[in-house]
Amino acid sequence: MHYLLELIGVGVFAVSGVLAAGRKGLDWFGAGVIAVVTAIGGGTLRDILLDRHPIFWIGDPNYLWVILGAIIVSLSYLRIWVASRNALLIVDALGLAFFTIGGVEVAKQLGHSDPVALLMGTITGIFGGVLRDVLTAEIPLVLRPGRLYATAALVGSTLYLILIRLGLVQYVSALIGMGMIASLRFAAILWEIRLPVVRLPEGGSSPTQGL
Amino acid sequence: MHYLLELIGVGVFAVSGVLAAGRKGLDWFGAGVIAVVTAIGGGTLRDILLDRHPIFWIGDPNYLWVILGAIIVSLSYLRIWVASRNALLIVDALGLAFFTIGGVEVAKQLGHSDPVALLMGTITGIFGGVLRDVLTAEIPLVLRPGRLYATAALVGSTLYLILIRLGLVQYVSALIGMGMIASLRFAAILWEIRLPVVRLPEGGSSPTQGL
Amino acid sequence: MHYLLELIGVGVFAVSGVLAAGRKGLDWFGAGVIAVVTAIGGGTLRDILLDRHPIFWIGDPNYLWVILGAIIVSLSYLRIWVASRNALLIVDALGLAFFTIGGVEVAKQLGHSDPVALLMGTITGIFGGVLRDVLTAEIPLVLRPGRLYATAALVGSTLYLILIRLGLVQYVSALIGMGMIASLRFAAILWEIRLPVVRLPEGGSSPTQGL
Repeated sequence: MHYLLELIGVGVFAVSGVLAAGRKGLDWFGAGVIAVVTAIGGGTLRDILLDRHPIFWIGDPNYLWVILGAIIVSLSYLRIWVASRNALLIVDALGLAFFTIGGVEVAKQLGHSDPVALLMGTITGIFGGVLRDVLTAEIPLVLRPGRLYATAALVGSTLYLILIRLGLVQYVSALIGMGMIASLRFAAILWEIRLPVVRLPEGGSSPTQGL
Repeated sequence: MHYLLELIGVGVFAVSGVLAAGRKGLDWFGAGVIAVVTAIGGGTLRDILLDRHPIFWIGDPNYLWVILGAIIVSLSYLRIWVASRNALLIVDALGLAFFTIGGVEVAKQLGHSDPVALLMGTITGIFGGVLRDVLTAEIPLVLRPGRLYATAALVGSTLYLILIRLGLVQYVSALIGMGMIASLRFAAILWEIRLPVVRLPEGGSSPTQGL
Repeated sequence: MHYLLELIGVGVFAVSGVLAAGRKGLDWFGAGVIAVVTAIGGGTLRDILLDRHPIFWIGDPNYLWVILGAIIVSLSYLRIWVASRNALLIVDALGLAFFTIGGVEVAKQLGHSDPVALLMGTITGIFGGVLRDVLTAEIPLVLRPGRLYATAALVGSTLYLILIRLGLVQYVSALIGMGMIASLRFAAILWEIRLPVVRLPEGGSSPTQGL
């Protein structure tokens, strides 16, 4: 089941990459590059950090086929996708949910402590999207003030770990954790829930001043 | 021979890094940093992904000496280099050709499948240039609409793999593959060949809208 | 002692991440993400490149606790910190000094040659700050023309290696090396010392021209 979730997560993030590329007017191959990077970025960084070789998509070609399929489908139906205004945010929230819980699970399976597993889940969840946003010259979603992005990943991961500790079956815990992450993101998008912003004194200088 | 090609590729990409830094008005050390990152970026990512240790430039100091030489020579002759308008694009195309085929070869030698080898070649070829462009705050060449960049890398790699399968000697196949990559890039630069852009419906919103 | 220095370096860079995030108006979690990335970025890249597993912060949870503490303290006292204009530059210079010498030492302990150790020290020192600046959409400090940034790291590392060769006790050599790095950066900030900029001929074109 873990495998299935990861395949879906890869496909969902590939779609989000194509959507982001479409909004920047890239050509098909550029969109393909962004889609691949978004889909494999988080899991690749996780596997490198945990010294888990072969990297998931190198050891199993199915991931690359799913990405290829997702690119072709989303390029074909792009007009419909984009018609719904929040399409990118929704697929991104789903990808975040799948990858975060998957990342926590991988770290736990390798015997790492809870703080490391939490951080690894968050990294797995957000890194692909960060690469997508950096490459398309957007401010990464995770850094936009008060969007509950890293927060959602951390809260969902923590909930998942607590439920596992309480003895709940693993796949139910995973579903609840992922549901929490996606719900928090949807709530943040719908009702514009925000966290407090880091406040600076009036004369707050930019880093270039006084340099 | 593979070794010689990689040394040339490293030198060529180092030159492209200095040129890019010169266009941004960086100082000599900044230019050196960009040159090093551009030269070793793609191969380093390839070696990390394939768990191939030591990383090529850590195991063999010659690479660092070639880069140092390329930086000194290109800083000395910068005015001449830049006089030809497309200098950066031309050295970049050569580096792309050397590194892409080199990356495919390394992946095949380690026994990976053709799809993985293709992707690895493309990553090796384009990643150094992407780092260079991100660090100098340019839109990565690979993402500019319709420049046949990733396309050239993929077509050349595929041609190389087909020729090897057909039983052609390896170094001839490599030369033809590299020639194809460089030619496609030169053609794209000269005649502005473009791929179709991902089209969006009229009301296509920016990712920040509706957030 | 090496361990203590690295813990301080991690804390100092975490503070610099919070300061940079505060200047961009990020929320608390965004600031936390930037702080973590800045604090662990350089050492993580070093460990990946040298195939040194587990990565330092994965193998020892103390690093994560120090980062968490640094984030909480610096969020609480942010107003005071920022009141001094050069706060970010000063903590950044200290982090650069700690991490650069630490990186050189790790590479030497693993038996690498001096050129590799120098480069590894520089990478360890500057990479966290580069990530911080890229993620907060600033031009990386290391690339700003003539700030003696990479220069300071290289000069301090070289001095450290020479002192070790001359038979000086290791921790004294480390202190002198770090003092040199921090002093050069402070001098560059105070007196605006600059290196010559890469000069281009009059008609120097931007990379996009002639494409």
